[in-house]
Amino acid sequence: MMHVYADRVNHMENSAIREILKVTEQPNVISFAGGLPAPELFPLTDIRESYDRVLGAGDPSVLQYGTTEGYLPLREEIAAQMRAKGIKAEADNIFLTNGSQQGLDLIAKLFLNPGDVVLLQNPSYLGAIQTFRSYQANFKSFLTNEGGINLPDLESSIKQHGPKLIYLAPTYQNPTGTTFTLEERQAVARLASQYGIPLIEDDPYGELRYEGPILPSIKSLAAEDEVIYLGTFSKTLAPGLRLGWIVADQKIIAKLTVAKQGTDLHTSTLLQRATHYYLTHFSAAEHVEKIRQTYKLRRDLMLQELKFAFPTQARWTEPTGGMFIWLTLPEGYDTDQLLPRAAAAKVAYVPGIHFFANGESNSSMRLNFSNPTPEQIKQGINRLAAIMKVN
Amino acid sequence: MMHVYADRVNHMENSAIREILKVTEQPNVISFAGGLPAPELFPLTDIRESYDRVLGAGDPSVLQYGTTEGYLPLREEIAAQMRAKGIKAEADNIFLTNGSQQGLDLIAKLFLNPGDVVLLQNPSYLGAIQTFRSYQANFKSFLTNEGGINLPDLESSIKQHGPKLIYLAPTYQNPTGTTFTLEERQAVARLASQYGIPLIEDDPYGELRYEGPILPSIKSLAAEDEVIYLGTFSKTLAPGLRLGWIVADQKIIAKLTVAKQGTDLHTSTLLQRATHYYLTHFSAAEHVEKIRQTYKLRRDLMLQELKFAFPTQARWTEPTGGMFIWLTLPEGYDTDQLLPRAAAAKVAYVPGIHFFANGESNSSMRLNFSNPTPEQIKQGINRLAAIMKVN
Repeated sequence: MMHVYADRVNHMENSAIREILKVTEQPNVISFAGGLPAPELFPLTDIRESYDRVLGAGDPSVLQYGTTEGYLPLREEIAAQMRAKGIKAEADNIFLTNGSQQGLDLIAKLFLNPGDVVLLQNPSYLGAIQTFRSYQANFKSFLTNEGGINLPDLESSIKQHGPKLIYLAPTYQNPTGTTFTLEERQAVARLASQYGIPLIEDDPYGELRYEGPILPSIKSLAAEDEVIYLGTFSKTLAPGLRLGWIVADQKIIAKLTVAKQGTDLHTSTLLQRATHYYLTHFSAAEHVEKIRQTYKLRRDLMLQELKFAFPTQARWTEPTGGMFIWLTLPEGYDTDQLLPRAAAAKVAYVPGIHFFANGESNSSMRLNFSNPTPEQIKQGINRLAAIMKVN
Repeated sequence: MMHVYADRVNHMENSAIREILKVTEQPNVISFAGGLPAPELFPLTDIRESYDRVLGAGDPSVLQYGTTEGYLPLREEIAAQMRAKGIKAEADNIFLTNGSQQGLDLIAKLFLNPGDVVLLQNPSYLGAIQTFRSYQANFKSFLTNEGGINLPDLESSIKQHGPKLIYLAPTYQNPTGTTFTLEERQAVARLASQYGIPLIEDDPYGELRYEGPILPSIKSLAAEDEVIYLGTFSKTLAPGLRLGWIVADQKIIAKLTVAKQGTDLHTSTLLQRATHYYLTHFSAAEHVEKIRQTYKLRRDLMLQELKFAFPTQARWTEPTGGMFIWLTLPEGYDTDQLLPRAAAAKVAYVPGIHFFANGESNSSMRLNFSNPTPEQIKQGINRLAAIMKVN
């Protein structure tokens, strides 16, 4: 039987990352392609105890249907964490999701008609582009100078394209690792407010800071309710749990509630109860510090190895946090075409082209340093340099 | 700031059940309104051990990102269970979801353009109506005779309306508790194939059989790939886990994979690993038998109490499985308008009107018998009869 799908299906693509990860499943491939945390750092013992305690307390409601917004004590705990970061939030402003990917999907569901414009950084997070595309969005980007914002260009893009949403990852962005300055954050908050455009601030990596100042979130700088903030436990706890949250105005939370009811009723009660137990009984802050120390060493090592391996031609970002370095080869190189050669040499990356909403060809690549071991980072960067024939 | 939402938001409604459940949260209200399993039957100890074992095995991959289709050994286990029910399925035909509500959402996402027609039973599952509505579907129904199908009417509905999807819950349906006969199942499978229309067979209650024959699923009777089957662990294990599955042709699974990537990446790895452990180490069949025995007693009691309380005027279905009885008052009664009086008398139900996609006014109500205790069933039915003033 031939199936006739909805029009939006033509706008969905099989994720490039997915196909690339197939390459990395071959034996002995060193992968800088994924966006995976280091599994050896997952707090298995503490999470095990958290599940054991909530399942062992004799309260069957941990396995019953729950409210769509989420488990109230967890919403209260997250609101307190948000307030500690300068974001005005009560439990009523917090909405639990199955990872922040679901946050993106629900916000797109609320705001995007087919043909609506989403204004975003170029390059941007692949998963966000994919989600917005499934709602048949059009994309406009504004100029960035190695991650920084060209503010006049941003404002003229807003005026010219009338975007329905602005999507930004201002802190240790995926894929570039770059971060907006305080002035840029203030300017973006002001523009969103001035033009009345909802701004999604995606912040999966904010806690993974290796040096430099702690910068306030755009949400905390915005006077009004235009900023919708997305948080996640995927990078600080574990991604296989699938738990994230949205911070937004109560009116938006009410709409999200209706949207999520039709989507999957609610996020797992047991998962929320166990995560609440973990947050209130173990030192999440100490655990994040351990992650920071480990990833900082890996970032330092990768930067050092890049310096040795690509002495002149290539350039790259030097992120002060997060999980990624963005490497750019001289013009004329096409990292998408080079990927099969990299795979043959048992090393993988994500070609830069996949992070551009409108698919601009590109000589860049995203390199992940959180998942590979130090030994793999050394070997992998050398394999990469060899196939690029630039040293 | 005034937000301008997408057009689809006008088609989303706050779930009536949600508002009704607020009534039931008041103290001492006996609720027949929810669709909740009996929490005292949740296998807390076995689920606790399952989580403990998978988290205690020293394998951090239980907390890592996973594949979108789902954990392969769990897909294999579910495929085997499906084959035992006569459905041709391999692991490649199984797709894991966050409960079958997400299955409905993803299928709607794949197939429905705004204005497309969904053909469904009247009444139908409220959550399905809500999901299809969020994709701006139109609804057409076919005549049912207390749950049975009027086949000539179904075929003429297909011809007249050209539906994009057919949605059916043929076994112990929510809200009526009624079940299609073997002949009806065969006829529906034939019609879907003949007209080439994807048919969603929603089967959350199939395992909850109290008497009567085990009937084959429509999926098992269909020669081709037009039937998309939805299963869930919500009724046989626990709904707070949020785990369900889709059985479909591989071409549809491939499209579902792309759709779910943009929606929430994948279903919790830990949840899938723990559920796989449970299914392969504990006797799920024995547990379901315990649920059956308990719910059968509650159904019997509710039917008996209805007989005493409503000796003449009202009529009701006598379901051979599932969790619901559908009660119809004499014409002229409006169960929606009567609900505040019921709430004042500390008893709750869901007015029938909410199960009709096009909102036909109705003198019916849905009564749940799985969640209330026997004592609550007795008291609640008597409270109901008193406020209906029909005895």
